[in-house]
Amino acid sequence: MKSYHELYQMFISKLEEEHFNSAPTSLYGPIDYIMSIGGKRLRPLLVLMGAQLFGRAPEESLDAAMGIEVFHNFTLVHDDIMDHSPIRRGKPTVHTRWNTSTAILAGDTMMVMAYDYFLRLQSNNVMEIIRTFNTVAREVCEGQQYDMDFELRSEVTIEEYMEMIRLKTAVLMAAALKVGALLAGASTTNMDLLYRFGEKLGLAFQLQDDLLDVYGDTEKFGKQTGNDIKTNKKTYLLVKCLQDASPEDKEAIAQWLMRNDDPDGKIEAITTIYNKYDIQGQVEAAINQLNHEAAALLAQIDAPEENKQPLHEISRSLMGRAS
Amino acid sequence: MKSYHELYQMFISKLEEEHFNSAPTSLYGPIDYIMSIGGKRLRPLLVLMGAQLFGRAPEESLDAAMGIEVFHNFTLVHDDIMDHSPIRRGKPTVHTRWNTSTAILAGDTMMVMAYDYFLRLQSNNVMEIIRTFNTVAREVCEGQQYDMDFELRSEVTIEEYMEMIRLKTAVLMAAALKVGALLAGASTTNMDLLYRFGEKLGLAFQLQDDLLDVYGDTEKFGKQTGNDIKTNKKTYLLVKCLQDASPEDKEAIAQWLMRNDDPDGKIEAITTIYNKYDIQGQVEAAINQLNHEAAALLAQIDAPEENKQPLHEISRSLMGRAS
Repeated sequence: MKSYHELYQMFISKLEEEHFNSAPTSLYGPIDYIMSIGGKRLRPLLVLMGAQLFGRAPEESLDAAMGIEVFHNFTLVHDDIMDHSPIRRGKPTVHTRWNTSTAILAGDTMMVMAYDYFLRLQSNNVMEIIRTFNTVAREVCEGQQYDMDFELRSEVTIEEYMEMIRLKTAVLMAAALKVGALLAGASTTNMDLLYRFGEKLGLAFQLQDDLLDVYGDTEKFGKQTGNDIKTNKKTYLLVKCLQDASPEDKEAIAQWLMRNDDPDGKIEAITTIYNKYDIQGQVEAAINQLNHEAAALLAQIDAPEENKQPLHEISRSLMGRAS
Repeated sequence: MKSYHELYQMFISKLEEEHFNSAPTSLYGPIDYIMSIGGKRLRPLLVLMGAQLFGRAPEESLDAAMGIEVFHNFTLVHDDIMDHSPIRRGKPTVHTRWNTSTAILAGDTMMVMAYDYFLRLQSNNVMEIIRTFNTVAREVCEGQQYDMDFELRSEVTIEEYMEMIRLKTAVLMAAALKVGALLAGASTTNMDLLYRFGEKLGLAFQLQDDLLDVYGDTEKFGKQTGNDIKTNKKTYLLVKCLQDASPEDKEAIAQWLMRNDDPDGKIEAITTIYNKYDIQGQVEAAINQLNHEAAALLAQIDAPEENKQPLHEISRSLMGRAS
């Protein structure tokens, strides 16, 4: 059984073996760049962990892990254009370092490359794996659209917000685990439990991300803090705060959301209101709840306890993370 | 045997049955729009013709035809952003009618939808079909990148230009035919001949497109004429003219390429130089040559002459087209 750390090393070695430097370099250069500037490699690790959980050697699941990671990075490249994000993993985003056209096309190419990796798999259920991937790829697009739609709406409920992040973030983590389980030939019951575990993990992960965007350390976080506030993103923090705040504070937030002339003032003012209602504490409570639910689902899965360890580990590490 | 016109009607009926109106409408509305504003439906027809050529009922190849058409429309949505094109098929482009973010995400979703159609096919070689599609999807991205790269270069050879349009345009038409042939279980020899026929057809099609961009009628063409000249696109016309022109005329073109202050003057001046060297006549000669080569390849294919008729017909109709 390989530990979280060993699986991480295994995936990094695979990544270093891959070369994203075909011609034209104007297309593959940006792909090589985004694939090599780091990241937690969380989703490919979930593929390997899902496979190992049910007895498939993670070494034989590396192409699926690559497919998921390339797809994830494609979504980052395109989302960063749409969200006007200048920094990713402490480095300029692709559309900032090159330009929007290059970032669009590099992303498109990465999407195709993701399928190439799945098509390479040695498994008799590759079609089912591609079907699973296709479903989630569509959901991720829908989630991103809801996210953008929410920026234009004054009111979003917690339920709507949770459904949006389920689509945008959680299902890809769930599908990464499921792809690993499919490769290992797991039973439907076990696979469903693992998928739901992944969803909970993903939801908790996104709430943590929302928190870090306000309370994180820019250097450790790898992107500018306060960006969500600046761009009026409907995060769990904002949605919760608009639900809890007094009419006066709600009005103050509404006023700030209409202004773009003083980003630093906006970040400070809205953070002060968050603090007043202990939004941080409430988000942390929601994260804890999701982690408990995730652990309960993991406990129900019929697999050797030892094989579950990396999943417990990843769950813990995501809770304590600073980036 | 179904004629070109009957296959067209069959595909249009299929298209009308499909609904691109799931939630969120902010995502699927633009997809429904681009899929429904017309177009020649050339590529899906090639799928049906490729299948029929080798004896598969076109009715049973409609999902593959849809996959190819949805993919093609995805490339149009993204290319129109990159090329800053305001009009497509006589209507505002997606990024003009909505915005760039919506157009990026609608395109991404269409890419995923294309695979969904292939995954629905009832055939024992779906994996091979998806592999063929994946290869061509990658080539189309590379072709678009070369196209953009060429805009920044002062010199491009005819050979480089032809390779660029082979990737950007011709291989998708070739692959559409090949997908049909794969569904019909054609022999490798026949499939290769058909693929090469599709490449020649696609090259001729693109040269015709280059011609229409300068000499076409805006209303029939469905997009603004002169756009290629305005945006310094390296078309066959420009590449050929830079090769043939006197040093003075080359210099005059080079001066205009650096100017964006007078688009109408630029279009007129460069068109006048094209006329001086009979570029139109030379492009027409190149198109004729490609069509002869295409016909020779089609003649070598071992299939009933009757089944080849729609392919002869499509070839003829592309030569005489105004849009």
